[in-house]
Amino acid sequence: MRDLSRRPELLSINTATVRQQWSLPQIIEGCARQEIRAVAPWRDQVAQCGLKTAAELVKKHDLRISGYCRGGMFTAPDKAGRQAALDDNRRAVDEALALNAECLVLVVGGLAAGSKDIADARQQVRDGIASLLDYSRAQGMKLAIEPLHPMYAADRACVNTLKQANDLCQALGAGIGVAVDVYHVWWDPELAVEIARAGKNNWLYAFHVCDWLVPTRDLLLDRGMMGDGIIDIAGIRRQVEAAGYNGTVEVEIFSAQDWWQRDPDEVLRVCRERYASVC
Amino acid sequence: MRDLSRRPELLSINTATVRQQWSLPQIIEGCARQEIRAVAPWRDQVAQCGLKTAAELVKKHDLRISGYCRGGMFTAPDKAGRQAALDDNRRAVDEALALNAECLVLVVGGLAAGSKDIADARQQVRDGIASLLDYSRAQGMKLAIEPLHPMYAADRACVNTLKQANDLCQALGAGIGVAVDVYHVWWDPELAVEIARAGKNNWLYAFHVCDWLVPTRDLLLDRGMMGDGIIDIAGIRRQVEAAGYNGTVEVEIFSAQDWWQRDPDEVLRVCRERYASVC
Repeated sequence: MRDLSRRPELLSINTATVRQQWSLPQIIEGCARQEIRAVAPWRDQVAQCGLKTAAELVKKHDLRISGYCRGGMFTAPDKAGRQAALDDNRRAVDEALALNAECLVLVVGGLAAGSKDIADARQQVRDGIASLLDYSRAQGMKLAIEPLHPMYAADRACVNTLKQANDLCQALGAGIGVAVDVYHVWWDPELAVEIARAGKNNWLYAFHVCDWLVPTRDLLLDRGMMGDGIIDIAGIRRQVEAAGYNGTVEVEIFSAQDWWQRDPDEVLRVCRERYASVC
Repeated sequence: MRDLSRRPELLSINTATVRQQWSLPQIIEGCARQEIRAVAPWRDQVAQCGLKTAAELVKKHDLRISGYCRGGMFTAPDKAGRQAALDDNRRAVDEALALNAECLVLVVGGLAAGSKDIADARQQVRDGIASLLDYSRAQGMKLAIEPLHPMYAADRACVNTLKQANDLCQALGAGIGVAVDVYHVWWDPELAVEIARAGKNNWLYAFHVCDWLVPTRDLLLDRGMMGDGIIDIAGIRRQVEAAGYNGTVEVEIFSAQDWWQRDPDEVLRVCRERYASVC
């Protein structure tokens, strides 16, 4: 297992972690000040400052882009909606390439509007990823399916376990892998088996950390800083690395009432400390 | 599939559904007024009016007790805590017998206080149920493990899928089964397979309904009335009955901001209507 206290260059900051305080250029400058060498930016932040500016800043600071957030949202009530989603996903692939991202992270989408049919949503997701793969493979951009916690099955992602994500990768062939976020998967009784399976197949593309707070006050925006909750983060990282994972450890915290209210320089400092001492 | 609009006697009201408005005697009288023939009471409500009074009321109104809520919470940081939990569970079995309940529902407990080891919690749960079974089997009271949604894994139940519950039943032998609550399991990609498995083994003891709201504003207390959310309740009931389930359909809604604020007679009326038209 890697000693993160001696590997500061493996820390990546998902830009959502300080999104309420800073624009993308400010985040990049802030990370540079604190010698953080990798980030994972969001599309809306890139759109706000412009793709060209974002790419220039990444190059200027020689930043590693651990993932681009995010493609997906494949489900829709009709064919036109699904086609629009696919078109948008192709643009996301182009942007990920321009930023030299290691992968495009996919949050696949929940139930189509008005639908209660989760099996249909899962089929739509499978079809959508298959179509996108034709494009992303040709462009040389890897896709990473991020299974989301089952509490997001209705409105964000109907891929809710690492097993489902692995099954999709197995069915769809080269160019597709998984992003393992401890927040979404820590509870899964089949986690160890499925991490090993992803590693064996060389499709473990990303590893994200934050913590599960008790109590959790909001389904989306109450994620905790590593060490403040109940996830055995180091235990999961051990499994991930035993499976061959060699990439960054990406911190992604949505925290409306706590970390988004703090001085963003402080947030980055605490991320760096906890990364080294907790993860 | 049973036609619920012609089977009003299969409706059961979990007493949590109107717990903020009424005491247990009031709930029983209210159900009797509306010709609701089954309830599932909670231990704290029974304690409040006294077991003897509760049992007399049940008898007077010839009510069916679809389940007794609840045993479980087996996990603890030390042996004394686990023993105390076991003693309390034995008392719950006694109470369930006095009320002539069809089963004692088990919410098994989450991580032990101070622990991040979910595998250990799961082992504690298995050991706890095994011990309790020695007692409950001798007394002739069935235990029903209720797998809870993974968002409760930390603080309420580390059995989070029907597969886990079925595996426990298979390992622990006679006298133990499962309670399937659509709120907890609707998202599970292996749900159909595991419902069939529970049915085949004759350990499908209870079926609970409510709905998943989008958005869900609170992890615990924002459950929806059947038809107001996105769960395909009838689709799951079809599977449960195809697997041989022949019992009640129990409505259990925790709703701090909505249904707990309404006239409880109205709540029961809506439960009865939606039971017949949606479930």
